[in-house]
Amino acid sequence: MEGSRVFMIDQNKLPFHFKIASFDNYLETCRAIRDMTVRGAGAIGSAAGFAMAQASLMANEQHYEHELEKARKEIEGTRPTARNLFYAVERVFTAALKSTDQAAEEALSIADQDAKDSLAIGQLGMELIPDRARIGTHCNAGWLAFTDFGTALSPIYLAHEAGKKVFVYIDETRPRSQGARLTAWELNNAGIEHVIIPDNATAHFLSRGDIHLMIVGADRIAANGDVANKIGTLEKALAAKRYGVPFYVAAPSSTFDLLCEEGTMIDIELRSEAEVLYVEGPDDQGIVRKIRTASPGSHALNPAFDITPVDLLTGIITEKGIIENPSKQSIEEVISG
Amino acid sequence: MEGSRVFMIDQNKLPFHFKIASFDNYLETCRAIRDMTVRGAGAIGSAAGFAMAQASLMANEQHYEHELEKARKEIEGTRPTARNLFYAVERVFTAALKSTDQAAEEALSIADQDAKDSLAIGQLGMELIPDRARIGTHCNAGWLAFTDFGTALSPIYLAHEAGKKVFVYIDETRPRSQGARLTAWELNNAGIEHVIIPDNATAHFLSRGDIHLMIVGADRIAANGDVANKIGTLEKALAAKRYGVPFYVAAPSSTFDLLCEEGTMIDIELRSEAEVLYVEGPDDQGIVRKIRTASPGSHALNPAFDITPVDLLTGIITEKGIIENPSKQSIEEVISG
Repeated sequence: MEGSRVFMIDQNKLPFHFKIASFDNYLETCRAIRDMTVRGAGAIGSAAGFAMAQASLMANEQHYEHELEKARKEIEGTRPTARNLFYAVERVFTAALKSTDQAAEEALSIADQDAKDSLAIGQLGMELIPDRARIGTHCNAGWLAFTDFGTALSPIYLAHEAGKKVFVYIDETRPRSQGARLTAWELNNAGIEHVIIPDNATAHFLSRGDIHLMIVGADRIAANGDVANKIGTLEKALAAKRYGVPFYVAAPSSTFDLLCEEGTMIDIELRSEAEVLYVEGPDDQGIVRKIRTASPGSHALNPAFDITPVDLLTGIITEKGIIENPSKQSIEEVISG
Repeated sequence: MEGSRVFMIDQNKLPFHFKIASFDNYLETCRAIRDMTVRGAGAIGSAAGFAMAQASLMANEQHYEHELEKARKEIEGTRPTARNLFYAVERVFTAALKSTDQAAEEALSIADQDAKDSLAIGQLGMELIPDRARIGTHCNAGWLAFTDFGTALSPIYLAHEAGKKVFVYIDETRPRSQGARLTAWELNNAGIEHVIIPDNATAHFLSRGDIHLMIVGADRIAANGDVANKIGTLEKALAAKRYGVPFYVAAPSSTFDLLCEEGTMIDIELRSEAEVLYVEGPDDQGIVRKIRTASPGSHALNPAFDITPVDLLTGIITEKGIIENPSKQSIEEVISG
């Protein structure tokens, strides 16, 4: 954020174009969150914090609190499942009640904390990665999804930097293909060996012993350890359980929602059917085309997240420590402790 | 087959164009099997039988047996996992050793039998479908995949015709999208209510009790009941098991390979990475475009099938009866009995 302007990488243009987009007011920033110009648990949180700070700058002094409330509802409505969004909005809203300066400072500190948490997650998580590990991941929980480093990819980055040989299986992650588009792009840039597989293929590779370890991110974690994350996480976790492959979730404490008792209480965002029925991308001339991939006349359902029950998790990697075999009690001890 | 010419629906053009393609000799028919102009267990079997009959018509009398052998190897090399292909080639090859007329007759009788088996599977399988059932399926095992009716969809067609209300969840089935393209097209034509979901979403809907029953097809079934079917079947079966939803495989006895002891012995076809990295479809002008959906510079792995262990199956619906809790013994009794 510079002045009242928020800058972000336009993730809808990646991996084909790298473009920084800017947003002049909180309504524009809301639109960017909704249309996934910015996506990923931590990055949504940071963007939401900045949006709240923008709202505070714009708010009419006479109806300051009322306008802040209105903005808060608008921002919270963009991505209902994302815990970090509510966490950031709450913190910046409280600061904004004091002053617009404090709102901006708070938003910045949330983004800074996000980068620090990601680094700590990487440092703790890399101990779980043996040399020559073949690791599976889902969607994108890399530095694009956070202010820096990421969560699921942070341990992989640090293991690679420490000289360990790693190989990553990335599933496409339909319908928005964050795996094939964003995680592959990140790992390519970092020089980390990887391969893209169809979403349907993770269990196949797990069944053959080709993947030794799974690490994914999270969008919201309930008090009992149930995890809301990108649709498909549940299928991957079930497959890992069947074949005895460790399944870790990596997330900062800001992703935990200790007031939410269990996963079934988490609101699952339903996105537009067009994301499933059409695909966009560049043709061989580099011109972006939108094509239909489904039978005309048919409709689609597009839930953005699913709930992975805690019994399928080997552990949760947080910036405060790794919670093995998570439970309500062990989570409380680490997160609130 | 008319004369020496084989006619098929070009499934690569569906659902956007309905076109009958014709193939003048067995090499052309082999190419059509390989590039999936024709696909689906039974349809591959029928096409392979006709290819073998074409080979017998073309074979030079002086080296007749040698040329038949050569053709047989060529045909068998097109889709190594498909059991019906080997079954049909074997039968037509044996007939061709007697005469070219008998080869053509045998190929025709295999196709006829395929349609009869599909109908019987539908009649037996429809008893498993209660009124108002919400059924999940994967890939396409409808009439496009067989000579007629199909396997997984046959019970659904007959239940619908009998006046039962059914609703079908179709997963896209990346990378070739047979679910979103072909199954949706079939059900649309039949007036059966359905919705397309991303491959990653089946477990989510199962976890919520939205799907009451799963029915899928098979490309090869081992003697112990392990099933090779379209990649992703394993993930769906694991999810159905977790949530206590019945999981049925529908396949004619010609799909069983009783000489293959168990699933791990089945050869899994690895297809081109381009199927994963690029997507083809019509733009809003109806012009077919090919676009890249994955990060440039990254590669993909594209196994076409996976193995679902028999313990995940509720039963196998064959034309000879439904095998509940399948085992080596119960399969032998029904299939060889």
